[in-house]
Amino acid sequence: MTRRRKDTPPARPATSYDVARLAGVSQSAVSRVFNPGSYTSDAMRERVLRAAAALGFTPNGFARGLRSDRSGIVSIVMTTLDNPNYPGVIEAFARAFQRQGRQVALIAAFADAEDALARIVRYRSEGVVLTAATRLDLSRRIAGLCVRRGLPLVLYNRRFRGIAASSVTAENEAGGAMAAQHLLACGRRRAGIIAGSEPTSTVRHRIGGFVSAMRAAGAPAPPVARAAQSYDGGAEAGAALLGAHPRLDALFCAADVMALGTIDHLRHRLGRRVPDDVAVVGFDDIPSAAWATFDLTTIHTDHAAMVEQAAQSLADAIDDPGRPAGHAAVAVRLVARGSTPPPRPRPA
Amino acid sequence: MTRRRKDTPPARPATSYDVARLAGVSQSAVSRVFNPGSYTSDAMRERVLRAAAALGFTPNGFARGLRSDRSGIVSIVMTTLDNPNYPGVIEAFARAFQRQGRQVALIAAFADAEDALARIVRYRSEGVVLTAATRLDLSRRIAGLCVRRGLPLVLYNRRFRGIAASSVTAENEAGGAMAAQHLLACGRRRAGIIAGSEPTSTVRHRIGGFVSAMRAAGAPAPPVARAAQSYDGGAEAGAALLGAHPRLDALFCAADVMALGTIDHLRHRLGRRVPDDVAVVGFDDIPSAAWATFDLTTIHTDHAAMVEQAAQSLADAIDDPGRPAGHAAVAVRLVARGSTPPPRPRPA
Repeated sequence: MTRRRKDTPPARPATSYDVARLAGVSQSAVSRVFNPGSYTSDAMRERVLRAAAALGFTPNGFARGLRSDRSGIVSIVMTTLDNPNYPGVIEAFARAFQRQGRQVALIAAFADAEDALARIVRYRSEGVVLTAATRLDLSRRIAGLCVRRGLPLVLYNRRFRGIAASSVTAENEAGGAMAAQHLLACGRRRAGIIAGSEPTSTVRHRIGGFVSAMRAAGAPAPPVARAAQSYDGGAEAGAALLGAHPRLDALFCAADVMALGTIDHLRHRLGRRVPDDVAVVGFDDIPSAAWATFDLTTIHTDHAAMVEQAAQSLADAIDDPGRPAGHAAVAVRLVARGSTPPPRPRPA
Repeated sequence: MTRRRKDTPPARPATSYDVARLAGVSQSAVSRVFNPGSYTSDAMRERVLRAAAALGFTPNGFARGLRSDRSGIVSIVMTTLDNPNYPGVIEAFARAFQRQGRQVALIAAFADAEDALARIVRYRSEGVVLTAATRLDLSRRIAGLCVRRGLPLVLYNRRFRGIAASSVTAENEAGGAMAAQHLLACGRRRAGIIAGSEPTSTVRHRIGGFVSAMRAAGAPAPPVARAAQSYDGGAEAGAALLGAHPRLDALFCAADVMALGTIDHLRHRLGRRVPDDVAVVGFDDIPSAAWATFDLTTIHTDHAAMVEQAAQSLADAIDDPGRPAGHAAVAVRLVARGSTPPPRPRPA
């Protein structure tokens, strides 16, 4: 039995008991070898792994799943290769779930939502995090499929109308309002808005907060230009906006990466000074916002806190499947830098 | 048998045959539901998934592993949260392995090499890719453990002396030489070198190629300053180098992100003009190198080709475990931009 040849299918899969017997060790020693974080000597590890290989033993969390329906696997789904707005978020999720004692499967979904779901199911995922900077339609289809299958799901930095999934975002609307109030305090009232062309909830809320605060102050309604959510898209939208509205004295960019492209285009192509002619405010506080050449005033979003919150939300949903979907919004704050002029003293 | 309650442990794990019988469908229909990319109707999917859940069936690649020792899982190991030199590489690997019909497990290793190995083994990984921008010691320990266990391993953008693993890098030495030759062609001979403080093979080869080409042209030996491989580290190293050697007329930065910090520091803190006073060449051609404010001359590394090559190397190593470890170096090219002056005409 223990010497079964590979080409003869086993009557039943080997168990940790079989491995322990062949290796001549205790079952708990076998379990330690296959549990991350447990201590075992190199010699013991070697012995157990050799026995496991000889028996075709499956040393993974799925064995636990067979008994308890708990695989310990969560899937992180990405729909884009290019995530300039939050580098390191995938890695931060891996770290957070590992701290929960879970394993992380990475699903790259580039076109086919059904294929992504099949991969999620194949891993026997206990839950899913959907991260998405762009690719709105694809993300929504994947989210819908997960919810229909009853898979615990958390949306990261995104909400979908009509899909009952938990979500974690920044306080996007409040951040938009902060940006407007800061520009008003700096004496700028003729603002334009630059945003990514996909109508995501994040962009909608950021713009909504900005427009409401401008309106509340009696400032003119800001014109909006949309383009790809990228450095080049920011340059393009900035050019379009200032071409159509040359008297604008401020720009609010719903993503930092667009603000950087806008600033460079204003300075190097249009010969406009930032902030003297046009003040610029971004959103996200990506690392390059702080670089000396940009010195970008922006709304800081706390992705470390958002990842922690999302990982916790998913753990809660897995532990209590009856729990209703919830939304968490993580606080943002204004970081005032040199792309806006100093605020004016308030009248006495 | 098919109505077994969850709290009674099964005598043996359910098979796809059991699922097919309970669902009243063919075994190939069950297989289609659990194979990414296969077509099944929503109704069929629902029916099969319900039967699988009732039986505690494990619908994953590991079942294949029980029969054939092939799990179809590869692990990608990261040792840092912050990968400014190649954003999107993790996602590109996920895509490449999915195209091979494999699944991707993501392992975040932040301190403990043994823990990373236990996770790799627990997934029953067929092979491992180790991506590492920094954290040299940890990466080396993980690589050593994988090789000792006979796990197929590919090192991405890194080589380790004394560890017999396949590796894929850029042509780092040739790139360093190209940078030197371009500066010489622009009439700059008094060059300094800025590099990350960890003695990685990548940094060593880039510096080696640069120094050799300068020496071959009879130029003075370039002084080297090292700091964190980051924007701030670049600013710091640039300040130190120009403080100690004020007559330098060129800087070669072994990573673009350091070149950006150096350029901003030269312009905004030291009042030096780039390229008029000091020419700057980077390495990698990250997206921000092309931004108007930096317009950085750099050595382009083709990460898309490197990822494809690494994924293929790992597939080859899995298919033929006896294959000796090999190294692939992917070609680089100089991208001349505005941070270096125009090359001088050659003497007739």
